[in-house]
Amino acid sequence: MKIVIDMMGSDNGLAATVPAVLEFRANHPNVELFCVGKIDEMLDLEGHAHLIEAPEIVPQDAGVLEVLRLKNSSMLVAINTLLAEKADAIVSAGSTGGFLSATTLKIKLIPGVERAAIMAPFPTVIPGKKVAVLDIGASNENTADQLIQFAKMGQIYAEKVFGVNEPQVYLLSNGAEENKGTPEIVEANKRLREMEFPGFKGNIEAREALNGEVDVLVSGGFAGNVFLKSSEGIAKMMGSGLKKVFTKSLKTKIGYLFVRKGLKGMMADFDYKATGGAMLLGINSVAVKAHGNSDVKTFVGALEVAYKMAEQDVVAKIKEGFANEAHS
Amino acid sequence: MKIVIDMMGSDNGLAATVPAVLEFRANHPNVELFCVGKIDEMLDLEGHAHLIEAPEIVPQDAGVLEVLRLKNSSMLVAINTLLAEKADAIVSAGSTGGFLSATTLKIKLIPGVERAAIMAPFPTVIPGKKVAVLDIGASNENTADQLIQFAKMGQIYAEKVFGVNEPQVYLLSNGAEENKGTPEIVEANKRLREMEFPGFKGNIEAREALNGEVDVLVSGGFAGNVFLKSSEGIAKMMGSGLKKVFTKSLKTKIGYLFVRKGLKGMMADFDYKATGGAMLLGINSVAVKAHGNSDVKTFVGALEVAYKMAEQDVVAKIKEGFANEAHS
Repeated sequence: MKIVIDMMGSDNGLAATVPAVLEFRANHPNVELFCVGKIDEMLDLEGHAHLIEAPEIVPQDAGVLEVLRLKNSSMLVAINTLLAEKADAIVSAGSTGGFLSATTLKIKLIPGVERAAIMAPFPTVIPGKKVAVLDIGASNENTADQLIQFAKMGQIYAEKVFGVNEPQVYLLSNGAEENKGTPEIVEANKRLREMEFPGFKGNIEAREALNGEVDVLVSGGFAGNVFLKSSEGIAKMMGSGLKKVFTKSLKTKIGYLFVRKGLKGMMADFDYKATGGAMLLGINSVAVKAHGNSDVKTFVGALEVAYKMAEQDVVAKIKEGFANEAHS
Repeated sequence: MKIVIDMMGSDNGLAATVPAVLEFRANHPNVELFCVGKIDEMLDLEGHAHLIEAPEIVPQDAGVLEVLRLKNSSMLVAINTLLAEKADAIVSAGSTGGFLSATTLKIKLIPGVERAAIMAPFPTVIPGKKVAVLDIGASNENTADQLIQFAKMGQIYAEKVFGVNEPQVYLLSNGAEENKGTPEIVEANKRLREMEFPGFKGNIEAREALNGEVDVLVSGGFAGNVFLKSSEGIAKMMGSGLKKVFTKSLKTKIGYLFVRKGLKGMMADFDYKATGGAMLLGINSVAVKAHGNSDVKTFVGALEVAYKMAEQDVVAKIKEGFANEAHS
């Protein structure tokens, strides 16, 4: 297996990615790694990975054209390395928009896929259980066709990476009834029912989506982004509220000592950084977008997800799914 | 001042609304109250309110036609009473969809308003400070025109009810940049800037929307609904997570005693029920939709909001705002 890593572009830069690669390497000695960035800051990786020089960083808000123009950027060089080496996966902590544009244009979409989707695993009320939410922001608007494609890609991901037998698939809407939602959602709901899509359970409201019954939550990109960011926002707000409560006085600080362990465990369950990042689904390669503010642990998580997706042949499975559709 | 109250239709029925009316009445002896429901279950209110018989309840999932057909429903009789008495406000804990349809059709929209918006006040990181979020679900899709109208109605509400001097108005989007979002949001952003809408600050992401800087958050109804329900969902999830942490052992139960007060205060800040309900803005009357699972305290909150909106003449102010626009 070959994995290409864009080592630059995260807030913490090589200080986070270099130790993460070493840790990942220790767990997976047989994976061939290609690390792209400033070589003189990656010397610790000599003997563990191929080091490829690319000193520039794609800015966070870069448009498509700007990304493609930055030929010496670690992101573009990483993508070119993936193509040249026929590597299995690419991981980057750089600009999400840039990574999405550049992978879509250079690695291309899987035949039959109209739009790539950004997918993120969310925590649920059941500790350890995740739900695959897509799209969380690759598109602003999505047709019913595209929503159905997201359902299919999410289903394959949940099966192969979460290891769920028949993933339960829902559409995010403003009511559970089949006539609720935008015209695209109503149409997608109707067609998923008509085609007897395996595991399709209908619409679900955002309030219920993390109740542990859902394996795949399908949404248009705009609403999915709102779902992601409002969940993150409230979790963060409650986290800082709790901190205030526990640091208020000596008494509350003592109280903290009694519940520290459980509290840390709970906050870890709600830590969106813990899953490593978001996956671009629909691209002709495993492509993992690590969090922009990745620390070592988060970046290791992103590498592990890429490894698992490559090992489980998720891209080939998505290709098969869409090839079958073209023939039916 | 006259307030009409649909006493039926909440999950807790008259057991919640009757004591709530008595409590509200004690605080506002000069308000004339019209209570609509089963008279024989409202006898405690004799001498405090006009009692009007209407034994039927509009089902939660009632469509427009069904609501209008239920001529003996407490909701429809309440609306007719409002019209007959030229009352200032109506409060109901019944079906949201039914209340929206029936008020729009019978009380009518304010001239110039294309669509009513459902508005809910959200908690922010600043204790006590609220943000008016609209629309949270009256529509599925909204044009740029409608978003601008929501901005105007939200601005008036924040000024008159929150008492904020120049409310800071933002559009909910998937990025702060002015080119981010659906075509409708990009267009609304452009036009609000061009017209130099007072207090308009541009786009904001869901993650930042509760940071205390925002007074009015404008959104299309579908995304607004996702924002509301994902926030509620995460808050509830974290609440039950905390409960598990604190009830795990004798030790954690002791820990709870040390922080009980602060913790209760924090959870109360995140309690969406505390604000009483949602307001229908754009209708020719103050119309407050109390939570379906209202308890006494929540229903009193809904009555207090209706009182404040009527006292501050919010509907007349919105009318003025839209009349000025028609002439300009």
